[in-house]
Amino acid sequence: MTQHNEQMHLGAVIMATGNHVGGWRHPHARADGGHDLAFFQHLARSAEQARFDLLFFADSVGIRERGGPQSLRRSHHIAQLEPLTLLSALAVGTERIGLVATASTTYNEPYHIARKFASLDHISQGRAGWNAVTSFTDSEAVNFNREKHLAHDLRYARAEEFIAVVKGLWDSWDDDAFVRDKAEGIYVDTERLHYLHHRGEHFSVRGPLNVERTPQGHPVLFQAGASEDGQRLAARTADVVFSAADTLEQAVAFRRGLQRQVAEQGRDPLRVKVMPGVFVIVGETEEAAWQRSRELDALVHEDIGMAQLNSMIGVDLSAYPLGGPLPTLAHTQGHQSRQRLLLEKARREGLSIRQLYQLVANAFGHKILIGAPEQIADGLQQWFEAGAADGFNIMAPFFPGAFDDFARLVVPILQGRGLFRREYQGKTLRDHLGLERVQSRYANT
Amino acid sequence: MTQHNEQMHLGAVIMATGNHVGGWRHPHARADGGHDLAFFQHLARSAEQARFDLLFFADSVGIRERGGPQSLRRSHHIAQLEPLTLLSALAVGTERIGLVATASTTYNEPYHIARKFASLDHISQGRAGWNAVTSFTDSEAVNFNREKHLAHDLRYARAEEFIAVVKGLWDSWDDDAFVRDKAEGIYVDTERLHYLHHRGEHFSVRGPLNVERTPQGHPVLFQAGASEDGQRLAARTADVVFSAADTLEQAVAFRRGLQRQVAEQGRDPLRVKVMPGVFVIVGETEEAAWQRSRELDALVHEDIGMAQLNSMIGVDLSAYPLGGPLPTLAHTQGHQSRQRLLLEKARREGLSIRQLYQLVANAFGHKILIGAPEQIADGLQQWFEAGAADGFNIMAPFFPGAFDDFARLVVPILQGRGLFRREYQGKTLRDHLGLERVQSRYANT
Repeated sequence: MTQHNEQMHLGAVIMATGNHVGGWRHPHARADGGHDLAFFQHLARSAEQARFDLLFFADSVGIRERGGPQSLRRSHHIAQLEPLTLLSALAVGTERIGLVATASTTYNEPYHIARKFASLDHISQGRAGWNAVTSFTDSEAVNFNREKHLAHDLRYARAEEFIAVVKGLWDSWDDDAFVRDKAEGIYVDTERLHYLHHRGEHFSVRGPLNVERTPQGHPVLFQAGASEDGQRLAARTADVVFSAADTLEQAVAFRRGLQRQVAEQGRDPLRVKVMPGVFVIVGETEEAAWQRSRELDALVHEDIGMAQLNSMIGVDLSAYPLGGPLPTLAHTQGHQSRQRLLLEKARREGLSIRQLYQLVANAFGHKILIGAPEQIADGLQQWFEAGAADGFNIMAPFFPGAFDDFARLVVPILQGRGLFRREYQGKTLRDHLGLERVQSRYANT
Repeated sequence: MTQHNEQMHLGAVIMATGNHVGGWRHPHARADGGHDLAFFQHLARSAEQARFDLLFFADSVGIRERGGPQSLRRSHHIAQLEPLTLLSALAVGTERIGLVATASTTYNEPYHIARKFASLDHISQGRAGWNAVTSFTDSEAVNFNREKHLAHDLRYARAEEFIAVVKGLWDSWDDDAFVRDKAEGIYVDTERLHYLHHRGEHFSVRGPLNVERTPQGHPVLFQAGASEDGQRLAARTADVVFSAADTLEQAVAFRRGLQRQVAEQGRDPLRVKVMPGVFVIVGETEEAAWQRSRELDALVHEDIGMAQLNSMIGVDLSAYPLGGPLPTLAHTQGHQSRQRLLLEKARREGLSIRQLYQLVANAFGHKILIGAPEQIADGLQQWFEAGAADGFNIMAPFFPGAFDDFARLVVPILQGRGLFRREYQGKTLRDHLGLERVQSRYANT
């Protein structure tokens, strides 16, 4: 079996034209990239040349609405190509890099999701990954016959059943079911076909899937939910967890806690990879990096900064003074775990509302690294060696410049220290992540 | 404006590894092509080199189940790559050919469909088409929380509302809405944003779509339903109708009838293109073509031949003698218009049950042309000049050989007669079809 934790894994988080709220305004940003295949092809090739494990596409099924027209018009996250459609196109012209798209369990049907990711796994020859999210905004709900998003616990109950159905559908056919015997006229051996016959609380799905079993057996399953429900679901089902942590201690505690839960579910903890998001601002020198950070801060208009913050914590803070501290807040139905991290950080560091919105504009609550290439590498190495992470989802503030800087300046240092691969060893995303191909549940029956 | 009807349009109908039920067994067929991107890339390039207007992918959201395991195991139409995922990949490496995928209005949500086809239209730079179908088999229903498929009239009511929502979402943003003013920090002009606020019988969708308005304005809308409900829907909404007709008279009557209905809806009849399916067996000589036809007939095992026929007409005929005539049959909820055509043909030509299943195995009720290249060209020219068609959806019995034969042998004759383009004149699928870019409903407000 592949050794775990010898080297770190790296994902490139791609969200419209940058992960920073004002990043699209930077002179080196392609502000119109979000609808341009050639732009994404450049990023994919850049990440593949740097030997990244994967591209990760965030998504929502509605515009990301935060605070009305005054902030909406300043947001480059409101529209971009749909990730699954885009990843199929990016599968052509790349050879090795993993392709991970977000899709909601609340606003989809499992048959479609099983089918599309199975197709992507065939098209990419084993490089597909699905980031299963439960969706948490009303601006998505209103596009799917609802007024409000579902309550947190109901979303997770549906998600768990959804994922079980998808995995079941992926095992519809044994690996050798399609015999295609021209002489006898037998295309498929129906003895190696398995109807799912699922009847549950939320779904009734007979199957089988009308796609052959895929190169990876199952496309890689990602999850990002860090609430208790989210962790429980991840412990039962995920291959990779895209986590959010601000301090080393938080990150170590999260990974250990998750591994404990994975073990309690009877799964091997080393088979679940924890990859925190890390927002990186790198410069040729430390001073250049901080200069870029100040430039980015200046690109965040107060309208959108406040709207993002309000959305993230689920409460309207516009009545409070920008220079003052956060008021005491109640829990909401929204993005619970991220909210908690932010509020803890604000209290711990005594941040003002303005400082907090600038922070959110950077990293949405993820770890931030700002510095010279060696310093960035040090930061990643420290977390990796302390057991805080199996790898990192790198969030560049804007594209393509800031991502290319990371690939050009930081990756060679990680490679030189033996912390990251110089060449791909395998072909599939599971190969890169040190995860074995998934055997069918019927394989030994 | 582009002149209509000067030249015919050609589509390549791609369904797993061939349109003929036994075609995959032919020595020149790639029986395992249905899950292989390289196989589809070959077909796409072959069709583009022949200057076809478009590739057309049929689809269903379940295995095509006809008559239990004995026939199921003989069917190569039970599994293949999901068309939308596949078409994005095919958009890369092709330059001009239109990319049309089938998606069901019964088992999807309009927001997803609007979004994915909008993305495909961006990715392909204006070559996307959506074939909207209502789905009519129980083997699809059982994958989507239902026991039975919806009744015919209910499916069409839902389809009409679904299409209205999709078209509305495609107009969410004016063409010039995304201003991306870095200096002012304005990404999008919200004055040029239109919320849909749709509240109907089947859907409640606020919008807007989170994808920019697309190169074609709206991806091209295809429909195939030829029932009264289907024609009414097409007359109101379609750009292209994929029709089925067996005789010239039927085809002329259908096209005239449809054009009349289009005019009654206040639309220009020349803006709706009628493209019947034509199943073609071409050989270097007439004798070679008939030889191939006999080879194909011999590849249809009785088990699957009967199962296909039973499925097509919605009645189990296995109790009747194969050599005898069809019994009198009642109407079913299934594929109504196709059923009527088949029964008419069987009566008219005095076909036995076996002859009818061999016919279905070829063309599923579509027009059949068998002969030397000149004869195929003659057949297409006759229909085209008689006003039976604006073009044809060419159904090759197997891939890639039989399709490549059509491209190599027949297309040059059509070009030589001035009936088909030698070079693409435009860039988008609408350009090829002589259809103008769709203006937003808000364009002159």
